[in-house]
Amino acid sequence: MKIEKIGEFGLINKIASKTRNSRDVVVGIGDDAAVLKYTREKYLLLAADMLVEDVHFKLKSKRAGTGAGLTGFQIGRKALAVNISDIAAMGGLPKYALISAGLPPGLPLKFAEDIYRGINSLARKYNIDIVGGDTVKSEKLIINVALSGVVEKKYLVTRKGAKCGDLIFVTGPLGGSIYAKHFKFEPRVKAARALVKKIKPTSMIDISDGLSSDLTRIIEAGNIGALIYEEQIPVSGAARKSARSKKIRPVESALHDGEDFELLFTLSKKQIDPACLRLKDIIDLPVTCIGRITKAGSGLKILRANNQIELLSVKGHDHFGKR
Amino acid sequence: MKIEKIGEFGLINKIASKTRNSRDVVVGIGDDAAVLKYTREKYLLLAADMLVEDVHFKLKSKRAGTGAGLTGFQIGRKALAVNISDIAAMGGLPKYALISAGLPPGLPLKFAEDIYRGINSLARKYNIDIVGGDTVKSEKLIINVALSGVVEKKYLVTRKGAKCGDLIFVTGPLGGSIYAKHFKFEPRVKAARALVKKIKPTSMIDISDGLSSDLTRIIEAGNIGALIYEEQIPVSGAARKSARSKKIRPVESALHDGEDFELLFTLSKKQIDPACLRLKDIIDLPVTCIGRITKAGSGLKILRANNQIELLSVKGHDHFGKR
Repeated sequence: MKIEKIGEFGLINKIASKTRNSRDVVVGIGDDAAVLKYTREKYLLLAADMLVEDVHFKLKSKRAGTGAGLTGFQIGRKALAVNISDIAAMGGLPKYALISAGLPPGLPLKFAEDIYRGINSLARKYNIDIVGGDTVKSEKLIINVALSGVVEKKYLVTRKGAKCGDLIFVTGPLGGSIYAKHFKFEPRVKAARALVKKIKPTSMIDISDGLSSDLTRIIEAGNIGALIYEEQIPVSGAARKSARSKKIRPVESALHDGEDFELLFTLSKKQIDPACLRLKDIIDLPVTCIGRITKAGSGLKILRANNQIELLSVKGHDHFGKR
Repeated sequence: MKIEKIGEFGLINKIASKTRNSRDVVVGIGDDAAVLKYTREKYLLLAADMLVEDVHFKLKSKRAGTGAGLTGFQIGRKALAVNISDIAAMGGLPKYALISAGLPPGLPLKFAEDIYRGINSLARKYNIDIVGGDTVKSEKLIINVALSGVVEKKYLVTRKGAKCGDLIFVTGPLGGSIYAKHFKFEPRVKAARALVKKIKPTSMIDISDGLSSDLTRIIEAGNIGALIYEEQIPVSGAARKSARSKKIRPVESALHDGEDFELLFTLSKKQIDPACLRLKDIIDLPVTCIGRITKAGSGLKILRANNQIELLSVKGHDHFGKR
């Protein structure tokens, strides 16, 4: 059997099922970041993401106006940003980064320097120390960032914890990030920190593989279900553009497109009433209630605009084409 | 200018020179692992290494007996072992690993599972928790391991600290690791821990790029020189084999071949007398005194078997072909 048959998530599940961790591991494989014992008041967070040329991005051609490719700056910035987003989704603050780069020998030195300029631009903004890594030769450009962070124990939020009756919220409009947002998004550190300090969601995740994929992760982690309302999904302008080119409805882009890196979180009944009033004071971003958590076994459902309720199948991103 | 012109080390120096770290960073880019503030008595260590197919290894062909390629188990084991070696060289113990894997979609699932079996075999032995990572599609097989560890402050040893007059020691026989040692070496955790606890070398590094390369790093970090004695270099059987095929003298293999992952360390005059007597009691490995540290500006020199002293030029491993 080939890997493409079981897909990325199948493989991760296979590995996780064989991994037995020590007592210092609070949360292991299967969340945005690992959570580890650290000091009396804080946990250590660890996350890693690998970006590969021609899988996650194409190189910007030297000829101006060729469009689809990314500059070195954009690649470097994104490689760090996706990891910051993972740390933020746990309620934490990023701290130390290890950068491993596989670089084609023929790559212009300027391009490699631009990668590090892109990394540094975000590192400075979020007070992240670049403390090491590795530089090796590779046919394709590869960047792996391993990012550590910290979170006060009382502020830790994971994928697990949403309960039947909780409401589901999402920041920002969604969809079509392929047009630009995926390489210039701002990781939601500020919003996530405000949320964990002032309300503390019952669960949280960043939307990396698409709303349908990532909400499914919250459902699976919490052994619950969810019902979302089509008419409540915040559809971005880019989602409309993406939908036109794919000949689908814009809401489908917002439901399934990956790489929005917005926050998806749940609030309990007790939190909801005061929170709904205050959410816009707490987060300086568009935030929308898109549905509610339902009981175990009910899966992920959507109330369509025509008032039909149907199961929402996951079409989120898997590099191997399977879930 | 292309990257191949300045080489891997030139690039790392370029990046390090632009990186300004916070006060929590005790040692940043430029040692085997980064050293970070942690608890009152311990430091946190962070290291990362990336292995790329056809640069660091070839895949074992399914036809038996084709030789040069590595099995999944060997690749996985090595990816973790090189990082454990980095943590050991700082005097520390490994603790948490993040595994990022770029996998060709057509790779047999069995091969991918073997990679994780190889990783797990060492993880279990050294009580390392596999806590997360990333799995992505890639044309070539890529494994990046980011490993964190801890070291008691009093046991931390870095590349910097050797002084004029110190003696230079190395574990194991050296050279020709390409024949087998590079994928089945035992990281020198036990020996390194015994050394830092019982003697505490003035400097230490693991030999990853070759004795001449890695001793140069100790020299540069300490702003010192070194004189080594050709007749003292411990030459392995594999080095003799490698030398025959390259038509060079075996000692040249031992001096320059990479991936031995032995410990190279220095002891001060005060430590030397009692230590020489006790070294073999402390370390359960062959250990050899190969030379002494000389004054700043004298470079890396070698006393040849013919009693001539000459400058030893570095021929260690750089994936981009330059130093």
